[in-house]
Amino acid sequence: MSILVVGSIALDTIQTPTGKRVDALGGSATYFSYAASFFSKVRMVGVVGSDFPKEHVRMLEKRGIDIQGLEIVDGKTFRWSGSYDGDLNKATTHRTDLNVFGAFKPKIPASYKATPYVFLANIDPDLQRDVLRQVRRPKLVIADTMNLWIDIKRDSLVQLLRDVDIMIMNDAEIAQLTGEHNIIRAARKVLSYGPSYIVVKKGSHGAVLIGKSEFFSAPAYPLAELHDPTGAGDTFAGGFVGYLASVKKADRLTLRRAVIYGSVVASYNVEDFSLERLKKTKKADIIKRLKEIKKMVSW
Amino acid sequence: MSILVVGSIALDTIQTPTGKRVDALGGSATYFSYAASFFSKVRMVGVVGSDFPKEHVRMLEKRGIDIQGLEIVDGKTFRWSGSYDGDLNKATTHRTDLNVFGAFKPKIPASYKATPYVFLANIDPDLQRDVLRQVRRPKLVIADTMNLWIDIKRDSLVQLLRDVDIMIMNDAEIAQLTGEHNIIRAARKVLSYGPSYIVVKKGSHGAVLIGKSEFFSAPAYPLAELHDPTGAGDTFAGGFVGYLASVKKADRLTLRRAVIYGSVVASYNVEDFSLERLKKTKKADIIKRLKEIKKMVSW
Repeated sequence: MSILVVGSIALDTIQTPTGKRVDALGGSATYFSYAASFFSKVRMVGVVGSDFPKEHVRMLEKRGIDIQGLEIVDGKTFRWSGSYDGDLNKATTHRTDLNVFGAFKPKIPASYKATPYVFLANIDPDLQRDVLRQVRRPKLVIADTMNLWIDIKRDSLVQLLRDVDIMIMNDAEIAQLTGEHNIIRAARKVLSYGPSYIVVKKGSHGAVLIGKSEFFSAPAYPLAELHDPTGAGDTFAGGFVGYLASVKKADRLTLRRAVIYGSVVASYNVEDFSLERLKKTKKADIIKRLKEIKKMVSW
Repeated sequence: MSILVVGSIALDTIQTPTGKRVDALGGSATYFSYAASFFSKVRMVGVVGSDFPKEHVRMLEKRGIDIQGLEIVDGKTFRWSGSYDGDLNKATTHRTDLNVFGAFKPKIPASYKATPYVFLANIDPDLQRDVLRQVRRPKLVIADTMNLWIDIKRDSLVQLLRDVDIMIMNDAEIAQLTGEHNIIRAARKVLSYGPSYIVVKKGSHGAVLIGKSEFFSAPAYPLAELHDPTGAGDTFAGGFVGYLASVKKADRLTLRRAVIYGSVVASYNVEDFSLERLKKTKKADIIKRLKEIKKMVSW
């Protein structure tokens, strides 16, 4: 089944201990779409400026991503520039130029409105809620967010959570949102706002899936060499939602498998800058790491 | 089979967000011994002062722990006082009074010298090496350490590692020892010093077991309520080594199971101060959480 994603499309300038890229393709919707397209059809809604390289548009089209919802408007594309410290755990933002993304008002094309899976990538929760007002009875709504919105749009985010089936957050965000450092107590609080499940991403420590009567702990695929963690969360979400939409089920075992798929896709993504590693990744590579993780957790 | 443990025995004064204890029984050898004695016979070597409460000695004896190696000397018992912050991840030491422990020179009783399993709890690596000079051909040597020794006795610790089969460290310690933040690269470095395996404890993120051709990822048992993390590492080691000694094998699957046993015993320990929770824990409770973890990781 198809997935609708609404999020950012950016040109990132990134410095990590092992390299640097200037104006590389990035953004939550971009990373998510590419990752999800290993498994399912993706319909992308976002905005770029007239300076957005045509090669990126062609690449997305060639990948089979539906870009009817991609607006190209006069002005400059959203740019983010940042760097990571030695252990790649923390990004330092050097500059954020929202440009055309600053006035982004998602318009869901008529042909997208009945998409069964909706992924609300990290954008202003007011806009995420606006997207939900435009779509018709989605089968499953999955959302992401970031520390900025918890900080300045907490009420709107909590409102959004009423209509989200599965919320994806990282451990720092869930602690910030709930004021709870204990992951179980924090998850319980988020579940009380509405979602049936929450996936807590813990970077190199893996991810947990928590529901009212569900607790699943998944390891991260262990990597000796990471080059750029940008997009790890978005590609995790892409693998997760992409797999769910491909099997058309959302039972407990399927959700657990989806977490593993998400982890594997993210593990490839962080091995190089931008989409460079994912572009070389094949479905068979994903299955290979999936099997390795299976061996890694059995006892 | 029997386990010889050499380590500290302390009276701890601890403040956590949920409570306080003054002069409660603690120390690495104490926590380890109690935890390991769920599974195996333990022979304990340590030192206390003449002020050490007799009730603790009786409790250890009643538990079946061999305390022939427990020296009681004139003076005061080792005292540690500390507190934990809100998320219980970091201990702040308020006071360390080594007292009789400051002059501790482990003397292994003749009847202990051929003990097949040797656990070197966290003490000065010079003393850990001295213990290995006193024992006869142990089947398996497992060791722990702490940031202090990495800081001031690094060379001695690296020397020790030549004769250790399984090293147990936490993620901060292994990064400090190797200068590597990546757990795989850090583990490879430690393995190059001698051990066949390293177990990296990651607190609430679980533990990993790494060998030349082994990578096992174990979750921590999820707890909504923790009261005192003191002794978590020592009780993990106690469950780990205790289980290994009880099954008399050290193949890959056994080692993986041992990590899970260690995690479960540690999960009970942190639910209350000192040994208060472990004293109420039965073997059946351990098996119960073991089964829950099994469910928690399957997909």
